[in-house]
Amino acid sequence: MMKKFVYGNPVDTDAIVNDVEATVGQVPVGTSAIDDHVFSFTYALAPADKVYGLGEQVRGIDKRGWEYESWATDEPHHHEDKRSLYSAHNFIVVDGEKPFGLFVDYPGRVKFDIGYTQSDALRVECEADLKLYYFEGESVLDIVRQFRHAIGKSYKAPKFAFGYGQSRWGYKTQDDFKDVVRKLDELDIPIDMLYMDIDYMQDFKDFTLNEKEFDGRFDQFVQWMKERDVHLVPIIDAGVKKQDGYFAYEEGKQNDYFCKLEDHKTDFIGAVWPGYSVFPDFLNDKARHWFGMQYEALTKYGIDAFWNDMNEPALFYSQYGIDKLNGQLEEFLANEKDEVPYFKLGTQVESLKNSMDDYRRFYHHKGDQWLRHDKVHNLYGYFMTRSASEAFETLRPDQRTLMFSRSSYIGMHRYGGIWTGDNKSWWSHLGLIVHQLPAINMAGFLYTGPDLGGFGADTTRDLVLRFLQIGVFTPLMRNHSALGTREQEPYQFERPEDFRHLIGLRYRLVPYLYSEYLKAIENDTLMFKALAFEYKDDPIASQIEDQLLLGDEIMLAPVLTQNATGRAVYLPQAMTKVVFHADETIEQTPMDAGWHFVDYPLNELVFFIRLGKAVPLAKAARRVTDIDWNALEWLGDGRDYTLYDDDGTTKEDTLIIKNLERQK
Amino acid sequence: MMKKFVYGNPVDTDAIVNDVEATVGQVPVGTSAIDDHVFSFTYALAPADKVYGLGEQVRGIDKRGWEYESWATDEPHHHEDKRSLYSAHNFIVVDGEKPFGLFVDYPGRVKFDIGYTQSDALRVECEADLKLYYFEGESVLDIVRQFRHAIGKSYKAPKFAFGYGQSRWGYKTQDDFKDVVRKLDELDIPIDMLYMDIDYMQDFKDFTLNEKEFDGRFDQFVQWMKERDVHLVPIIDAGVKKQDGYFAYEEGKQNDYFCKLEDHKTDFIGAVWPGYSVFPDFLNDKARHWFGMQYEALTKYGIDAFWNDMNEPALFYSQYGIDKLNGQLEEFLANEKDEVPYFKLGTQVESLKNSMDDYRRFYHHKGDQWLRHDKVHNLYGYFMTRSASEAFETLRPDQRTLMFSRSSYIGMHRYGGIWTGDNKSWWSHLGLIVHQLPAINMAGFLYTGPDLGGFGADTTRDLVLRFLQIGVFTPLMRNHSALGTREQEPYQFERPEDFRHLIGLRYRLVPYLYSEYLKAIENDTLMFKALAFEYKDDPIASQIEDQLLLGDEIMLAPVLTQNATGRAVYLPQAMTKVVFHADETIEQTPMDAGWHFVDYPLNELVFFIRLGKAVPLAKAARRVTDIDWNALEWLGDGRDYTLYDDDGTTKEDTLIIKNLERQK
Repeated sequence: MMKKFVYGNPVDTDAIVNDVEATVGQVPVGTSAIDDHVFSFTYALAPADKVYGLGEQVRGIDKRGWEYESWATDEPHHHEDKRSLYSAHNFIVVDGEKPFGLFVDYPGRVKFDIGYTQSDALRVECEADLKLYYFEGESVLDIVRQFRHAIGKSYKAPKFAFGYGQSRWGYKTQDDFKDVVRKLDELDIPIDMLYMDIDYMQDFKDFTLNEKEFDGRFDQFVQWMKERDVHLVPIIDAGVKKQDGYFAYEEGKQNDYFCKLEDHKTDFIGAVWPGYSVFPDFLNDKARHWFGMQYEALTKYGIDAFWNDMNEPALFYSQYGIDKLNGQLEEFLANEKDEVPYFKLGTQVESLKNSMDDYRRFYHHKGDQWLRHDKVHNLYGYFMTRSASEAFETLRPDQRTLMFSRSSYIGMHRYGGIWTGDNKSWWSHLGLIVHQLPAINMAGFLYTGPDLGGFGADTTRDLVLRFLQIGVFTPLMRNHSALGTREQEPYQFERPEDFRHLIGLRYRLVPYLYSEYLKAIENDTLMFKALAFEYKDDPIASQIEDQLLLGDEIMLAPVLTQNATGRAVYLPQAMTKVVFHADETIEQTPMDAGWHFVDYPLNELVFFIRLGKAVPLAKAARRVTDIDWNALEWLGDGRDYTLYDDDGTTKEDTLIIKNLERQK
Repeated sequence: MMKKFVYGNPVDTDAIVNDVEATVGQVPVGTSAIDDHVFSFTYALAPADKVYGLGEQVRGIDKRGWEYESWATDEPHHHEDKRSLYSAHNFIVVDGEKPFGLFVDYPGRVKFDIGYTQSDALRVECEADLKLYYFEGESVLDIVRQFRHAIGKSYKAPKFAFGYGQSRWGYKTQDDFKDVVRKLDELDIPIDMLYMDIDYMQDFKDFTLNEKEFDGRFDQFVQWMKERDVHLVPIIDAGVKKQDGYFAYEEGKQNDYFCKLEDHKTDFIGAVWPGYSVFPDFLNDKARHWFGMQYEALTKYGIDAFWNDMNEPALFYSQYGIDKLNGQLEEFLANEKDEVPYFKLGTQVESLKNSMDDYRRFYHHKGDQWLRHDKVHNLYGYFMTRSASEAFETLRPDQRTLMFSRSSYIGMHRYGGIWTGDNKSWWSHLGLIVHQLPAINMAGFLYTGPDLGGFGADTTRDLVLRFLQIGVFTPLMRNHSALGTREQEPYQFERPEDFRHLIGLRYRLVPYLYSEYLKAIENDTLMFKALAFEYKDDPIASQIEDQLLLGDEIMLAPVLTQNATGRAVYLPQAMTKVVFHADETIEQTPMDAGWHFVDYPLNELVFFIRLGKAVPLAKAARRVTDIDWNALEWLGDGRDYTLYDDDGTTKEDTLIIKNLERQK
């Protein structure tokens, strides 16, 4: 059961596609109030209540015990004490005696105090212009299904996007890119996608190519990759360099496609990678259409995959901030004897970034309304991705395009996936992705994954392998790292055969993973579930946050700490332990419910299959296109499996659902 | 078996007190080499080798898989990817087929690459002026005992220091301090120590009192506390404000007691809390004596407890750094159109802090040698604490003084304890202290503990309680937090009775904890041990890093994740589970070896006692002095316990060792 409550004059976010009439009166649970134009919903949490959701956020699967803010932020430090990351996923489920869900459809800042100020109090707060959707159901999964139906079917990625992707911020020359493919091929390590970070562009200008490297030669370069069945995935940033003569700047400026200052005339200018830049007004239909059509600069070469970045939007600084800082610097310099300001200088410089002052200074032109950015901030990444996606209807009318974004809002799940942003090469960030996956799925994002090995900070060989052991199962399986950090491609470490083994197994699991991905799309279900979602009455299972269910068949129990050669695993029911040994043999051992210490070496893959379930397994392949879907083996003791499949490339509905029966 | 190898001309650190003659020739294992005045020790690690030690450091109990640097650093971010924290504890044990230990007695930077660059290679590296001590023994504990004998007996804290301490950076007025005691007393929550952070001083000047608050009234203030049996613990910082007329500055300057620039004449000036400051040359005997005697400014009021801070030494910036920055700022301002430098400005401002340039610019006068600071950097906190400790021989000749420091080097363990610095209110920092405790004990530091509840970032009620469940057992049990973060005294949260329960239990355990502390001092043993140290042959126990052994009786298995109401615990042998329920009843349940899911609510205390062992338990008390050592109850199923005790206050040897037999 879904109810809608409307307060004030909400901006239409297009998050909900299967809507209902607004209900007059109070939300059935808790207390809703408006005070001084601030909306609040408060609810008394019972001691055993758990709160799930919020999508891409910090902390645990159960979100109790912290205060979160939905405010899309370019936040490279995913610390426990942060309030916001890149996305705004305002959907929560309170799982108590009578579970209910809430979707706060407000695109500005929303606070979720979930037992932070007071252990037993939930409080949601935002400006009083919103639609609040209330869901009632039997269980978390039932409520999620209703919510997902309301927000519409999730984006469907092409099948090749289930291959392995290699990335690093720092690849620049043609040889940098080609070498990755050459080296992986040489080591017999599969690859389907090669990512191009900002250095492929000329001066970080969207829709341009680095002249020195690619001028007149990009076609051949793409061809070289195509011959090897490797898809290039260029990055597109939100900001457009403010540079006279640059086509994207000139066209956008002429047509008033960029965000404006309060006068609704002057372009807002902020600095990002290309230096001073302007920001396409994706909320303006014409501007959105125009920007999306620019992707043709790359699709015309046959590029069929993109990632959208910096679209919170991130702002390094603005002229406004710099002017303010310059004044301070002049003061410091004039007053050298006053020591204290120097101590504060770092803070002042830091505050230039993603400054609220700036976010309040520019406007969007949506329909005939001018909207101040901070009131609709969380839509920016969503509408940027929608921009591309809508244009692909023209540019690549029949084909699916791989598309994922850093920032998002619920609704964007229909246009693309997300990656979880700039994580670090930290063991604790292995744990974080386990917490994030079910919540991100709840918000409708199914094509997702973390930067395997960790983006920031120096990684270690064992950490990359442990990340891969999780990444084998996430739709987006990409190893990505930052300029200046230790290189982490599989060939940078001893014994690359261990990397080959794990990445190779991914390809054997693609029929299952792709099938489960399609099922989650078609049936509005979760690909990744917390144990609590299925074993709520099991007091142990319901609090385990370092294991996950995948589909209806698999349970994952990854090793999340350094130097551990195994871990304690809780089986809420009898299962088959599956071990893909390094020597390519497969061990399958039935295990009883309860606690087990399970060996999980760095160079093997271990997971569990519920008794009575079967998982199809393909033969090894070097590219997704090479996978033979007709020669499947079986894992687990079940007798059949319902396979979802399609042609993997077109937008047509080619879905097939077939019951695979196991040969005796 | 201990061997010493001498390379080059090592500075005498006084770390070792029971020395041996230098051995000529090669270290018995691995490869030692000197190349271009760089000493290196390399050793091929077998897959199963574990490496323990390094004291206060990041990461796990087994240090494999990272590159550490001993370089005392004011590092408020104890992230996994940091190389250095506040202390330099250059002792490691490689636990393989034939365990051995190494103590790298070099007071400048030392690198420990423990399977980072290559998974199976250990490499230690520093300048080639060092003493290298090599230890051979049967086990980790055997090697530790030999090493600890060599470095001399650990500092013995007064008994009151085993009480609960309350602290917060931000207490300023007399009422701020008195209110803490009043509120805790009112709630019947014990307290023995009240910490005074930097605001008690006038302008952050060492050995002064805030004039407005304490002028002529400090005596009464101390008296007020004494009447309530509360010990004030003022902070002392390393830097001395450069201010004409300030006695400490004038005296030190007149006598050349401060660190000098290369000319050996001009004082080095760096900014810390008081602004531009000079740095006492603690390596100079006279300066060290002089600084220590300044503590009389506080001991004369009856102050018997101190913490030494900022003694890495931390440097916010120097005039040299500022001059350089000013040049850059002028360039930026002159060239407003060049946008890129602004992006780098933050990094440049940040690099003012703890700058290597500065550490290379000043000198110590030790004996008749002038030593450049960076070559002896890691001794600074050690010799500051030694300075006070040596002066206490005169100032408080018979009495023990509570003394602990932020920075340390091995050797300092004879003069004081350490706290683990500016941790954060993060769940992951609960796990970190579990990893650090055995390693810190290995380095000789027995009086130690973390800032309970977390120093930086906002805490939560449950996190403070989970920290207290560990802090109940650490000799230093202090709740401390930073200015600007959420207040975290027990009375800031709902249901303070939960805090009373846990802190109250600490007092019941003091006879046991103090006894185990004395045992560890007297017998050169560890108070906290990794399970691996005792159950090396148990493949599960030997890799468990979230449980600890305390003494020979207790095993701790704290809950380290939010919202968990229990956890999986591994018992390497049969034990008695002890639960101090919130209603004050005590449950004792025998448990078999193996895995158990153990309930561990927020407001209870749960631990395990090995079968056949007994732990004495006192009645409740509000101050350590109120504990009745003659009315002990018993926990566990053992029949007796060897109690170590002394008068708890004097330096005289009043140690008694008695076998307590349990009444049937």
